[in-house]
Amino acid sequence: MKEIYLNGEFVAESEARVSVFDRGFLFADGVYEAIPVYHRIPFLFDRHYKRLCGSLEAIGIPFPMNEQEWMRVFRRLLDSTPSENASIYIQVTRGTQHPRQHAPADNMTPTVLVTVSPMELPEQLASPVKIEPVEDIRWLRCDIKSISLLGNILLKQEAMKHGAAEPLLHRAGRVTEGAACNYFIVEQEQLRTPPADQLILSGITREWVIELARKAGMKVSEEAFSLAEVYNADECFLTSSTREIVPVTQAGEHQIGNGKPGPVTKRLAELFRAQRPQ
Amino acid sequence: MKEIYLNGEFVAESEARVSVFDRGFLFADGVYEAIPVYHRIPFLFDRHYKRLCGSLEAIGIPFPMNEQEWMRVFRRLLDSTPSENASIYIQVTRGTQHPRQHAPADNMTPTVLVTVSPMELPEQLASPVKIEPVEDIRWLRCDIKSISLLGNILLKQEAMKHGAAEPLLHRAGRVTEGAACNYFIVEQEQLRTPPADQLILSGITREWVIELARKAGMKVSEEAFSLAEVYNADECFLTSSTREIVPVTQAGEHQIGNGKPGPVTKRLAELFRAQRPQ
Repeated sequence: MKEIYLNGEFVAESEARVSVFDRGFLFADGVYEAIPVYHRIPFLFDRHYKRLCGSLEAIGIPFPMNEQEWMRVFRRLLDSTPSENASIYIQVTRGTQHPRQHAPADNMTPTVLVTVSPMELPEQLASPVKIEPVEDIRWLRCDIKSISLLGNILLKQEAMKHGAAEPLLHRAGRVTEGAACNYFIVEQEQLRTPPADQLILSGITREWVIELARKAGMKVSEEAFSLAEVYNADECFLTSSTREIVPVTQAGEHQIGNGKPGPVTKRLAELFRAQRPQ
Repeated sequence: MKEIYLNGEFVAESEARVSVFDRGFLFADGVYEAIPVYHRIPFLFDRHYKRLCGSLEAIGIPFPMNEQEWMRVFRRLLDSTPSENASIYIQVTRGTQHPRQHAPADNMTPTVLVTVSPMELPEQLASPVKIEPVEDIRWLRCDIKSISLLGNILLKQEAMKHGAAEPLLHRAGRVTEGAACNYFIVEQEQLRTPPADQLILSGITREWVIELARKAGMKVSEEAFSLAEVYNADECFLTSSTREIVPVTQAGEHQIGNGKPGPVTKRLAELFRAQRPQ
């Protein structure tokens, strides 16, 4: 029976329940984080932890545990996971409040959920995917990793209707991100990715890829670009903590480059794999 | 022990729990509805029911019950409520899916929650409130009554920090609505309220007040207006299903009219009370 952590206890997954008056359930009043684990070592943990703290602070939820307590929880869940490679999922909501009312009560006890799921480790370049341009209708604080995700879900569904893996979200033609990934394009061997403003969630993998590229001597620009620039790029790829680097070879009706994963994408994916905990 | 309805069963409020894998908890993947009940009669039920169906359809959740089944649930909960006047809260999420993934599975069974809470019936004009101008950062489908409400919560908190009851939300100066209410202003005895587009949730009470006003011979315009027009209005009030009509006499630093509830607001609130089920 697989266990998860919920509010101070380790419980069977199938028994893990929260009150219907949890503000996470009623108001999406919470945040989350997902941390990849390679060979039982959480990857770039400090950065994920810092982002979680930032998300909590942004919506005014007190830190429910210190770093050491989090680590104890992760360790126990990882120890009981057969897989070497996994993904840690953390969700913190503002807590349970009754009766339902928009304004949160003072001094609430946050609800804390942690689960660990096996993650398939890409040993070679992922298969290329298609993405679909869809207008980004989400709120203007996409930099907060909140569970208020209905917009992301509907936009993902819209992309899937067109046989695409992810939406290529844009605001009036200006590219933002995917439903759960960031985008990069390659133009004349230079990397471009939208800036980490309030319109995107600044991915840890996005940041890591920028660093890898710069260390490898590549130029990286974090300036906004348009849908047309994606269509006309030499290469395009997406990044996410659980998918790492995935080549994008089609955007809507447009083939990108020669329709095959390009040399820069391949090189960065290799660099990424080489830097994972072994 | 107060009972609520959850997934086919009537359970004690304190025992009512959903799986942590409910998509309502993980992704805010659900919608809700709140229906006022006067003297045990749901008010404008058909309109609320139609809006609930519309919300479900908008995000692709199948109707979990027919109208008769809903009514049976409401009746039982209302029968066990001591209060004559109440508010029915309905929440429907896409259901439980494991493991967590953005894309919903096919043929999921929706999670259905219904609660009934006592409602205080205003017997006279509510006390006037202050509202606070706050930039509307929410998504662009505010016409869907979704539980993806973190934006609303943060904006409500921002207003409360300034001693206001509700935010006066605006996009670049164009007024939209409150965190959980609609706004009207009065200019030379004419009513104005923002149009029911995708930037606001078209309130049932908003619609009802427009009809009451028109029947009473007043002109009502549903054209966009600015913050400045609120500040300079003769009167302002908010509407919501549970609060009916509440006079607004201050917006940020600006006193509205003479700082007291105006004659049009009073007249409409009287008309409203006269039309409630007695």
